[in-house]
Amino acid sequence: MRMLIDGKETSSIAADDRGLQYGDGLFETIAVVHGSPRLWRHHMVRLHEGCGRLGIHIPAADMLYAEVQQLCSETERAIVKIIITRGSGGRGYRPLPDAVPRRIISSHPWPEYAADWTTHGVEIRVCDTRLGINPALAGIKHLNRLEQVLARSEWDDPAIAEGIMLDSDNYLVEGTMSNLFIVRDGWLSTPALERCGVAGVMRTHILELAEQLGMNCEITRLHLNDLQQSDEAFLCNSIIGVWPIRRFGHYEYPLGATTERLIQAVALAGG
Amino acid sequence: MRMLIDGKETSSIAADDRGLQYGDGLFETIAVVHGSPRLWRHHMVRLHEGCGRLGIHIPAADMLYAEVQQLCSETERAIVKIIITRGSGGRGYRPLPDAVPRRIISSHPWPEYAADWTTHGVEIRVCDTRLGINPALAGIKHLNRLEQVLARSEWDDPAIAEGIMLDSDNYLVEGTMSNLFIVRDGWLSTPALERCGVAGVMRTHILELAEQLGMNCEITRLHLNDLQQSDEAFLCNSIIGVWPIRRFGHYEYPLGATTERLIQAVALAGG
Repeated sequence: MRMLIDGKETSSIAADDRGLQYGDGLFETIAVVHGSPRLWRHHMVRLHEGCGRLGIHIPAADMLYAEVQQLCSETERAIVKIIITRGSGGRGYRPLPDAVPRRIISSHPWPEYAADWTTHGVEIRVCDTRLGINPALAGIKHLNRLEQVLARSEWDDPAIAEGIMLDSDNYLVEGTMSNLFIVRDGWLSTPALERCGVAGVMRTHILELAEQLGMNCEITRLHLNDLQQSDEAFLCNSIIGVWPIRRFGHYEYPLGATTERLIQAVALAGG
Repeated sequence: MRMLIDGKETSSIAADDRGLQYGDGLFETIAVVHGSPRLWRHHMVRLHEGCGRLGIHIPAADMLYAEVQQLCSETERAIVKIIITRGSGGRGYRPLPDAVPRRIISSHPWPEYAADWTTHGVEIRVCDTRLGINPALAGIKHLNRLEQVLARSEWDDPAIAEGIMLDSDNYLVEGTMSNLFIVRDGWLSTPALERCGVAGVMRTHILELAEQLGMNCEITRLHLNDLQQSDEAFLCNSIIGVWPIRRFGHYEYPLGATTERLIQAVALAGG
């Protein structure tokens, strides 16, 4: 792992940083291929939205881009994580209006997921840990991730690729690290995220591609039985791309035509 | 500010710490008077509960006590903050079972709140930011505090001492940094915290004192109008002790007999 903090190569951070003290910040996890960060514009749009929501001054995108390239220009494939915190200072929870944000950019090796998860699909489970409902924090990728940590610690079985999370009102939301789509009766659907969840950049990208392909597509409230009774289903994020869902408990799903078309569209778009 | 990280005097921390990456940890904010941490047992009970809930190995209380004393033995009054994180490591949200927790202990000057807030009471407001409901995280003092940060950033007026927070179902929960009690018809009541909120050590202490004093006391669900229609109301935490509530919007409250008895009991108990 290599790391740049406020542009300097180092691996330590002031312990009074509000990112540590309160989770007061945001992050993006970006696929970088041959030095080029994929879906960069989508990542920057979401980061901008998150900084606006939390009242954190967003660092210039050009500077972030240059720092990502500085870490990854020579690697074939890498993951870059950008963390933006509100920086140090302020007594207690109250943020200072002139807080200077801190940026932590790190590069990591590409994760080794099973190759056939992309081609043949994955097995998933449902998590007991629920997502609390809070529209003020919904959609953005902030640093308060204990719900995901608890959900991901529920299973050890390496055959299970992902766990699906429901909100406290029992609606289907997302995976611990991915977004969820289902296909039923010719409609592509993904859960609405105004109340909780992270609006993934690959989710946004796929919604755009689906529209370009003329698919019937909706963002809506879904229940667990909507997933169980779907014709096809898949997970996505900026690193894994698309993972078709093959099995969920007693339910088995085919690798269907809609999922295949979207996998091809993502590959063609270079996303 | 002085700081000990894993026993060493330093002010920086590994940036891959999961406390920063995910808010994966807990904290305690402790009043230390003449080198003696107040309500130590209550702080350790809550920290133990929190570590158990998150699956973090809790450091030995004796070691934490010695480190608190190392920072504060010569100060008349100080605040000590103990942060316990899951430490570094693990790819993504999934915690490693053998993660080595990190402890960050820092001392801070006593905050300068207006002296008459204790004697004459405070003015409060209600926050727009709501608390999401999540029983898995309720009660413990974890590092995911964006809801409090957003709530505390809602007002600038220095005359307003605290903001009251409701949950997403409109129940009364707590202040941004304090717990809430009301007195009505001879009953002392405080909101139940099984669904969200932080179970403050001073709240626990006051509930114990109230029982010893033979007061009628209940932990229950409360609405905003229960506060508005109360005979007395007060806020508490381990640093401020008790702040009677004097004014909330159009409502004015007397400094009543129950609140005064509890203020005296806290002072006598050395809490």
